[in-house]
Amino acid sequence: MKKEIPYKIYLEEQEMPKAWYNVRADMKKKPAPLLNPETLKPITVKELSGIFCEELAKQELDDVTPYFDIPEEIRNFYRMYRPSPLVRAYCLEEKLETPAHIYYKFEGNNTSGSHKLNSAIAQAYYAKRQGLRGVTTETGAGQWGTALSMACAYLGLDCQVYMVKCSYEQKPFRREVMRTYGANVTPSPSMTTEVGRRINAQFPGTSGSLGCAISEAVEAAMGQEGYRYVLGSVLNQVLLHQSVIGLETKAALDKYGIKADTIIGCAGGGSNLGGLISPFAGQMLKGEADYEIIAVEPASCPSLTRGVYAYDFCDTGKVCPLSKMYTLGSSFIPSANHSGGLRYHGMSSTVSELYDQGLLIARSVEQTEVFKAAQMFAKVEGILPAPESSHAIKVAVDEALKCRETGEERTIVFGLTGTGYFDMVAYQKFNDGQMSDYIPTEEELEKSFAALPHIPV
Amino acid sequence: MKKEIPYKIYLEEQEMPKAWYNVRADMKKKPAPLLNPETLKPITVKELSGIFCEELAKQELDDVTPYFDIPEEIRNFYRMYRPSPLVRAYCLEEKLETPAHIYYKFEGNNTSGSHKLNSAIAQAYYAKRQGLRGVTTETGAGQWGTALSMACAYLGLDCQVYMVKCSYEQKPFRREVMRTYGANVTPSPSMTTEVGRRINAQFPGTSGSLGCAISEAVEAAMGQEGYRYVLGSVLNQVLLHQSVIGLETKAALDKYGIKADTIIGCAGGGSNLGGLISPFAGQMLKGEADYEIIAVEPASCPSLTRGVYAYDFCDTGKVCPLSKMYTLGSSFIPSANHSGGLRYHGMSSTVSELYDQGLLIARSVEQTEVFKAAQMFAKVEGILPAPESSHAIKVAVDEALKCRETGEERTIVFGLTGTGYFDMVAYQKFNDGQMSDYIPTEEELEKSFAALPHIPV
Repeated sequence: MKKEIPYKIYLEEQEMPKAWYNVRADMKKKPAPLLNPETLKPITVKELSGIFCEELAKQELDDVTPYFDIPEEIRNFYRMYRPSPLVRAYCLEEKLETPAHIYYKFEGNNTSGSHKLNSAIAQAYYAKRQGLRGVTTETGAGQWGTALSMACAYLGLDCQVYMVKCSYEQKPFRREVMRTYGANVTPSPSMTTEVGRRINAQFPGTSGSLGCAISEAVEAAMGQEGYRYVLGSVLNQVLLHQSVIGLETKAALDKYGIKADTIIGCAGGGSNLGGLISPFAGQMLKGEADYEIIAVEPASCPSLTRGVYAYDFCDTGKVCPLSKMYTLGSSFIPSANHSGGLRYHGMSSTVSELYDQGLLIARSVEQTEVFKAAQMFAKVEGILPAPESSHAIKVAVDEALKCRETGEERTIVFGLTGTGYFDMVAYQKFNDGQMSDYIPTEEELEKSFAALPHIPV
Repeated sequence: MKKEIPYKIYLEEQEMPKAWYNVRADMKKKPAPLLNPETLKPITVKELSGIFCEELAKQELDDVTPYFDIPEEIRNFYRMYRPSPLVRAYCLEEKLETPAHIYYKFEGNNTSGSHKLNSAIAQAYYAKRQGLRGVTTETGAGQWGTALSMACAYLGLDCQVYMVKCSYEQKPFRREVMRTYGANVTPSPSMTTEVGRRINAQFPGTSGSLGCAISEAVEAAMGQEGYRYVLGSVLNQVLLHQSVIGLETKAALDKYGIKADTIIGCAGGGSNLGGLISPFAGQMLKGEADYEIIAVEPASCPSLTRGVYAYDFCDTGKVCPLSKMYTLGSSFIPSANHSGGLRYHGMSSTVSELYDQGLLIARSVEQTEVFKAAQMFAKVEGILPAPESSHAIKVAVDEALKCRETGEERTIVFGLTGTGYFDMVAYQKFNDGQMSDYIPTEEELEKSFAALPHIPV
């Protein structure tokens, strides 16, 4: 018997997940192991513990344990902004005149403005528990850096952020949020690391890149006693922490007896998508239920729809472990697409393997269409979405319009990962009709694929 | 019997208020009537209906009806972002080592970033119902303009915003949010109105003022068929709509058997404060309960603590009705304090009268101290507060620290009206140690008081 469904489904605090779900445990064919870039052999917990703190290194490599208890301190932090609401998009449905039922899981109701906080607090917590003094990281668009700054401020941990120089200059407000939370924010490439000095000497006046910022953050962590490096996407540990999104979504749906048909998430490195779909993919793996899962990526950076499934470097500096994933090649330079959070050459190895096994499909969409959907959504649902999140909105709208044609009453659930307050430069371009689209050519991709490392799989 | 108190108290949708509360109905001595600026006689609904739409003119002048039903369409819109959470500030309490229990009503969880949406949707709704084509308004800091743009986009109403020119240029992102919602945003003074052209001719290169923007918005409304002017604070109708804040707060406290001792709100024009305290002040007026109510204003614009209680103009252009209120004089020019939402020379006539009757006390605080409290709050509670809201935080912290001294277990409730995402220029000044304070001199105030209109009361 269905209860009447409210606009927003909030779980009670006692209904919130007490453990994260590790979808790899239920995969018969596991994601390929990370490789040590020097030996090309599967990396060990001990080796990984030089970069990441120990518990996180363990989580990273564990593909058999289905559940990890969420420590009480992290659950207390989660309670400050979770449970996030599962919202019934009644107004969007009305606008689209669709028989579909549309729900979105809104992760933007916290100061970091996105889902990134779910993993930031976990990574900071384990660093603190290990007795570390601080962590280093890189940030591009700034969501991850903001989230990590908040988590570190809460735990009294030092936080050093290498921010891609062009973002540092173009997004001064993001920078100031991090500083307000006490983080040390350095434009990258900087003169504080060897790799930074080398790049500055080689390319005077460069505005930096994510690859360079990663290398600087890793060097900074290795060079300071009591520091480790942390990363906000791609990794298995991040997907594990982000499973809280999917677990809450599933609990909220179950509470009201709602069965999802289609689940949609935007996909950059895979942190939000992987977190959202984990428990649903787990059901599919166990033969308990069936869903249509759609990963949405920008046409300008189409790792799933046009990439190859191969071992590749996670960073441009080639210091991190090698990962088997759908990739455009680590030498691929994404165009200046405004969805900074989706400009990554590769995809989480777990999401990649699920995709390879046919558990999800992928679709790529162009930027201008994405912003049109974003604006319509903002007007009817009252939330100004982040450009990244709007990729999911665009496909949810497309699917709902299909239902209008067919008359099908499908239940569509999508992840609304964040808000667009710090993306108004992109919205301004859209409002002024000056937004452009970009699709990489076959030649570009071929060139980038040719530079992939040759690893016998 | 107390239920265990969660971090965040969310009312169920069926527990949300179905009527607004008009505190004037329970005041034995009513606020003084608005005066027609030409006749100096109490203004009539008919006269007011030339500026405001009819239903709102009625609400403005009605001081006997205690409850106004909230139309279903408005309640549906409220459901998109309400109920707002009443949050137990467990982490702040721990940080302050206080026996006090601190709660805050958080109104920042919507794209407008503040409580302004509560009245924006109401005003837009009545305009739509009257068959109007659109509304005009002014905005300074931008919260009100954003909220009105959202409400108008939802209802398909045209929205014309006159934005103080210096804000238009310094806060381009606010402007773009409004444009994304389809509003027409004009920097004021503009060349589109007579008063704008006159001021531009008189003061070439002027960066504008709120008073001028109001005059332009009123002129624009009067000069277009099917348009009316709307305002986001000061007015009785606005306090009526904002009573939803106080009603929800009271319902949430009652639900868990919590009795507030101290209620704190920041005070600019009085919209948030008046809305938050209405039901509590109503209880006091009826002798049902007693509270300590504290209005917090910036030391740079101290209308309650240093103003006089007299009839004054609401706008610099002197086109709006005269209101009896605590005022610094309409010729008082507040310093460039960053809390744009608190830079108003006067105070809601209802809040002024409650203050005059001793139902609330007022305190003024300096900006740098406010930002210190804001930063501490952000670090422990995870929300980056608006500078305006942070005035309430500062006094809540002071009160909680007093409890640490005395050992008293008081229950402190304050209004957290909004978020600070668009105020990062101010935070940057604070982070860089370049924030300054300003307190008007006695001479300045005397000069401004001398220019008050002479109205026999």
